[in-house]
This record gives sequence, C-alpha cells and structure tokens, in this order.
Amino acid sequence: MNPQDLIRKKRDGARFNSEEISAFVRGVCDETWADYQISALIMAMFINGLNQTEQNSLTKAMLNSGKILDFSRIKLPKADKHSTGGVGDKTSLLIAPLAAACGLAVPMISGRGLGHTGGTLDKLESIPKFNVNLTEKDFHRVLKKCGLALSGQTTDIVPADKKIYALRDATATVDSIPLIVASIMSKKLAEGLDALVLDVKTGTGAFMESELDARELAKALCKTGRDFGLKTEAVISDMNQPLGKYVGNAHEIYECVKILRGEIEPEMQPTLDLSIELTARMLVLANITDDLDEARFQVEDALDSGSALEKFKQNIKLQNGNYKVCDNPNLLLDKDLIEVKIKSPEAGFISEIDTKAIGEAVCGIGGGRVKVSDKIDFAVGYACGKKLGNAVKQSEILGILYCRNEAQAAKVLAKLQMAYKITDEPNDRKFELIKDVVSVSS
Amino acid sequence: MNPQDLIRKKRDGARFNSEEISAFVRGVCDETWADYQISALIMAMFINGLNQTEQNSLTKAMLNSGKILDFSRIKLPKADKHSTGGVGDKTSLLIAPLAAACGLAVPMISGRGLGHTGGTLDKLESIPKFNVNLTEKDFHRVLKKCGLALSGQTTDIVPADKKIYALRDATATVDSIPLIVASIMSKKLAEGLDALVLDVKTGTGAFMESELDARELAKALCKTGRDFGLKTEAVISDMNQPLGKYVGNAHEIYECVKILRGEIEPEMQPTLDLSIELTARMLVLANITDDLDEARFQVEDALDSGSALEKFKQNIKLQNGNYKVCDNPNLLLDKDLIEVKIKSPEAGFISEIDTKAIGEAVCGIGGGRVKVSDKIDFAVGYACGKKLGNAVKQSEILGILYCRNEAQAAKVLAKLQMAYKITDEPNDRKFELIKDVVSVSS
Repeated sequence: MNPQDLIRKKRDGARFNSEEISAFVRGVCDETWADYQISALIMAMFINGLNQTEQNSLTKAMLNSGKILDFSRIKLPKADKHSTGGVGDKTSLLIAPLAAACGLAVPMISGRGLGHTGGTLDKLESIPKFNVNLTEKDFHRVLKKCGLALSGQTTDIVPADKKIYALRDATATVDSIPLIVASIMSKKLAEGLDALVLDVKTGTGAFMESELDARELAKALCKTGRDFGLKTEAVISDMNQPLGKYVGNAHEIYECVKILRGEIEPEMQPTLDLSIELTARMLVLANITDDLDEARFQVEDALDSGSALEKFKQNIKLQNGNYKVCDNPNLLLDKDLIEVKIKSPEAGFISEIDTKAIGEAVCGIGGGRVKVSDKIDFAVGYACGKKLGNAVKQSEILGILYCRNEAQAAKVLAKLQMAYKITDEPNDRKFELIKDVVSVSS
Repeated sequence: MNPQDLIRKKRDGARFNSEEISAFVRGVCDETWADYQISALIMAMFINGLNQTEQNSLTKAMLNSGKILDFSRIKLPKADKHSTGGVGDKTSLLIAPLAAACGLAVPMISGRGLGHTGGTLDKLESIPKFNVNLTEKDFHRVLKKCGLALSGQTTDIVPADKKIYALRDATATVDSIPLIVASIMSKKLAEGLDALVLDVKTGTGAFMESELDARELAKALCKTGRDFGLKTEAVISDMNQPLGKYVGNAHEIYECVKILRGEIEPEMQPTLDLSIELTARMLVLANITDDLDEARFQVEDALDSGSALEKFKQNIKLQNGNYKVCDNPNLLLDKDLIEVKIKSPEAGFISEIDTKAIGEAVCGIGGGRVKVSDKIDFAVGYACGKKLGNAVKQSEILGILYCRNEAQAAKVLAKLQMAYKITDEPNDRKFELIKDVVSVSS
C-alpha cells in the first residue's frame, strides 16, 4: 500500500478499511510518508469525509502509535475533562482540584495555546517554577499523591497526532469533525480513563462557531468514546463571550485561585458554574454517585470546605511550582503592567461580543502564539467588565487591558472596542451558559 | 493572502479570482509556500475543481512564472504537437522533421518518461551524443538552421510547473483536467507558437483511459488555447495497443528512421498514419494551406522525397548527435541483447491488449523510470508482433522482448503474456486509430 494508492482512494471518495488507516498512521510515524503526502491525504479526508468506522480506525491507529498509560495501580476511578478551546476558558484548573477533592484521580494531559485560544500548559507555567513536563513516572507519583497530575503530552503518547496536527494547522484542515475526534479521543484514550466529560464550545470564540456543528462534534466524540468502552458525555457550552472575568495566562490562574479561595467576584461566577457542572458530571459518570444533584453538592462542598484549594496547593508543590500563590494570589500578577481602559463609544446594550477578536487581541500583545515557536508573555491579559445583555453608558468601561506599554495597547485598542456590538434596545436573546448535554446510548 | 486562507477557500468549494491564483503560483516559485501547503491546495483543486476562468488564470500565472520564448525573428510559422503520452508513441520524432520539411518551424520542448509512458527526450538520448539540453541561444540557432529544435525544458521556462508536477506525481493528483491543462498549455504557450496540435490518447495505455474523459480533456485544452489566442486542435487517438511496432527508446528511434527512409514494415504503418494526420493538421492550422487533403499530400511528399529524413539528419548533426544513424539505423540497436519470444497460450483472436502492462514491462527491464531519479537502459525494448483483431495460433509469437538476460525476462514474461486477451470468436469492434478531432470555435 503505497502513499499514492491510499491518497487516490480517499481522493475518489472511497472508504478505508482499518488496515489502510493503520498503514497511513504507520507511515506518518516512521516517516515513510512525506509531509506533502500526509497533507494531501488529510485534505482528501477533510473534503470527502470519514465515516464512524473510519473515524474509529483512525482514533485507534493514532492511539496505538504510542504508549497507553496504565494507572491500574491507582484504585480511585480515573476521569478527565477536555474542552475544545475558547477564550478565558480556564475550567481545567478548577475542575482538576475539585474532582480530586471529591475522590477522583485526574490524569490531565493538556496542550498549549495557538491562535485566539489559550492552553492549560501555558496558564500553568505562569505559576513560577511550575513543571508541566513530567516524566511518566513523576506523573504517576503526583497523581497518586494528590489525585491530580497536570502535564504536557510526552513524545511517546500519540506521536502521530503531533505531526498530523502541525500539518493540519498549516493547511487549513483543523476544523474537520473526524480529524478533531481522532486527535482528541486518541489522546484521552491514552490516559487510561474510566470516564471523560467533554466541553464542546460554540459561539464567536469557538472553533465550531455554529451550535449545529458543535452538536455534531459532541455526538461524534461521544460515539467514539462509546465504541472504545469509555464512558463519555459532552456538554455544549457558550463561547459567545469570554468565560468569566479574565483572559490571559497569569490572570486566569489568578481567577481560579480566587474562586478556590471563595473570593468570587460576580464576573467570575460563570467560570465557577461551568466548572461545578462539568465536575459533577465527571463524578456521576465515574460512579462516585448516581445522582447529579448530589454530585453538584459534593463539588460545592469541596469548594466551600477549602479541600479543593488544598488539592491544588498540594499539586503545585508536587510539580515544583510556587504554591504560595494559593495563599497570596497577587503573587501571580506582574506589577509592571499598565492598565488601559476600553470604553463604550455609545450608550446601549451589549448584544454581541466578537470573542475571537478578544482572544486575538490578547494574543497580539504577547499573551498567546500565532506560530508554535512564539514565546508567551504570561502577565498580559484582559479583564472583562461588561458582558452580553449588560446596559452600558457612553464612555463606560467595557474592559481593561493589562499590557506592557501604550504602543502595545495602541495595536489592539480598536480591535477590542469593535469587538462589542452595542444596540439601542435590549436583546431578548437568552445568554445560556450551558446549551445542551449530549450522550449516546451504549 | 496567506496560504491557509487560500487553501480554506478552495477546500470549501469557492472560486478563485486571478489575483488569488497568482499569489499561489508566486508562493510556489518564491518558496513562501511549503510543499505540504502546495499539495493540500492541489488536492482541494483536484476534488473541488477549477472552472474555465480559474483554469485560464492558473495557466497564465504558470506561464508568467518564467520566460516566454520569442521566435519573432524566425519568419516561418511556428507550430508544435503535444501528446498526452502513451506506449510506443514516437510520432514527435517523425512530425518534427516532416513539418519542418513542409515549411514550418517546430520549437519542440519535450519531457522525460515516467511510469509506463516514454518521453521524447529519453528516446532522443538513445542517439549517441545527441544533446537535449540546449541553451536558449542554441535552441534558437538550431531552429533557425533546420526548422526543428528538440530540447528539454530549461529551468527558466514555467518553473512553477516543475515543482507542482513533482508534487502531483507524489500525491495522486496528476489526472485532473484543469491541472493537466495548465501544465501542458503553460509550457506550450511559452514556446511562442502560432499553432498547436494536441494528440489526446485514450485506451488501456493512456492516462485518460475512457474516451469520455479524453474528449473532455481535449475540449478543455482547446478552450484554453482559444482563450490565449493560440490556434489549437486536438486529435483523439487510440492507445488500446502500443502505437506501431516498437516500444523502448532506441527501438522507437529505429522505427522512425526506418519510416523516414521509406523502409516501412507493416507493423509500423499506424505510426506513420498518425504522424501524417497530425502534421497535416499543423500545416492547415498554421496556414501553410487551407486544405487538409492538400496538406496530407505535402507531408507524404516530404517523406517520399527524402526531405524529412534530410531535416532529421541535419537536426541530429546540429544537436551534436551521431547523424550516421540516418544512413544506418542498425547503429541504434545494441547487439548484446537477447531476444525472448512471447507466445500465445492458445489459438483465437486478440480482443484486448493491456497496453499499460506492456509499457510497465519495458519499464521493468530498465527501459523506463519508476522514480524520476532512475537511470534508463536505452537499448531494451519490445517488438509488437500481433495486434488487436489479429488471429493467432497456439504458440504463435505475440511479440519479442529485447533484454539483457534471462533473469530480466523472467521478471516480466508473465505480465507480457497476460497483457493479451485471446477470445475464440473474432471481435467485431472497430480498431480505429483516430477516434475524433476536437476544436472549439473562437
């Protein structure tokens, strides 16, 4: 099976069997396929599609391209959450300690930010000295000791994905459901989980803007979870505005620590609400309890009692980070930043927020990456003042940009201001945080 | 316009404007597009198509990526023939001298063989010391002196095609009509021609096996010719069996010289018939005469009078080749070969010939290239004995393989024998050499 024959087959819209998909993934890993051949096939897959069987074969072949973690010696149920990515989406950093405090083991392998969306690893690295590059042995040790371990993907876990994802990013083939499913699920299946909750974002800051696409992706993810015997549920959540108060790496950790400390500002409430919901669903899926309300109660209790904060502190310590940030979250904030206020040009009601533009603005002042090789300034960020549906007066503050200097601010000021659509009349649209929950029967 | 945006556009089936297509071709030439981005876009073009306007824009951008030859100082009408490739298809080597003898200037830029089809340059190189790498200045000089010049594509003519074609070959995106049209027509338009006759092959040895596809390609080529103001006509000719007697580089030159010398064996007749037809159409298109029968007569006269042979001899001399092959064609044949007879396993009628298999067999004993970097053994080849419709007795000779040794023969013997389908009853199918002539009104 040479590359040309396989490419031709998908080019002409035929279906692959599992052996053909394995041959492709093997070729990616052993480098007998050239990059231009991989990207040609990926484009053919993007346009002509993969059915459920092919999608599962691709997931399996990618999963088997590397190591599958084995936490069977840890007796707690293993569960994780994965989000499709958004702006200000920092729930992982709350969910992991909350879930651990409720009796789950959370072996969370995360990624880095690219484009307008942030990545958990970058956020964690804004905690001084926090080590996100754990060896498998250390990952196991940290997980066992505190119930959560937060690390980047080692080169031996799903190596095929790393290569394929980089090519997809460079060839406009990211937003294909079967390719997204194989990429996410192969990595999550490699974590050796009992349960997985997916947070599929929809809206102006999500990869899948339309709710219809998000629903389709959620279903496809759940189906693949089911077919691999992993209990999977997907929550479709709103990304028509940044989640919670802050956007920016250190600021997002700050928000999470504030919440874990019970110092919850009103703008932070959605971050907490979504985190509670996702964690509660992990508890039910992993059979900690069979009642969702009871699960929510347990999660809230883990927050109120301070046990989740304690878990996070323990974890930071085990991963060599400065755990004092849990006692004094201000340590996370850089005093050398200037604050630039974004003001409303007119009075009215906020009817739309271009969330992607806000993510890009933070990225544009160094808070994210345009290219994989870009360095990040963890300190810069944005605080959302007004949210969808809020009334604003002329010149009232919409948000605050935390940046290095005026010149930097000037680059993104107009973009931020234009991200807000102000209308004369209040919009009667409902701004629901959680739009739906998707699961498939086994 | 970054690569991802352009790729995304064609991926989603949208139409490109000419500026977008130029940006792509510029990116190919200045290497700001990576190979994997080029191949992703090419695959999207293959699957989602290019309309006539896009096809013309691509042709134009590719043409303008390099030098356009200018033969305005040569006062003769300039014409060329181009074939889409076949097995034993050696008409270029007859047409160029025949057309030159009839008063045309033929600036023929040819390619090399790949896979089952041969290439004019390889055939020419089987003439000892023949130089196919002419500088532009030498090309001009040779053309002016003898009316025909035969050379390879220099790096400054349509450089975009070289890069794109290599990627298409490696990514199963060769057989797309708009991509074929842009590749062929950009190179032919760079020759500064007044008239172009295309020989579009159809059948078991052609890239476009089906006659419907061949007809569609012929029409697309003619339309692009018309849109660029180049008089273009396409002949759809049969490639359900090798053309003429021989397959293999030196053997094909031998067949041409024999024909030019008037020593025409019956199996060689189709080679001559097709060459006369294509040359006569070049004469009419280039306004040497407006009557096709008169043109045919002139071509036959150029053959009978020996003036075409004289042109070829002159050309070989000017391109530093051993022109004595025109006086003694046996100089072309290597005496160190062995002859292996392919015999019919049964009595009956030849109803089908897998022409591609015959091309691949000759390629398999060194007569062609599987990879671009392969070296060719010019001497090896195959002589067709029986043709479509012929009656054969059991063990009668179907053809003769000329190869280096028995081991080499053993590799391809079964393939050659199986290439012939023998039936009990004669087939009442007509085996027409010329199936149709396509032109589009201007």
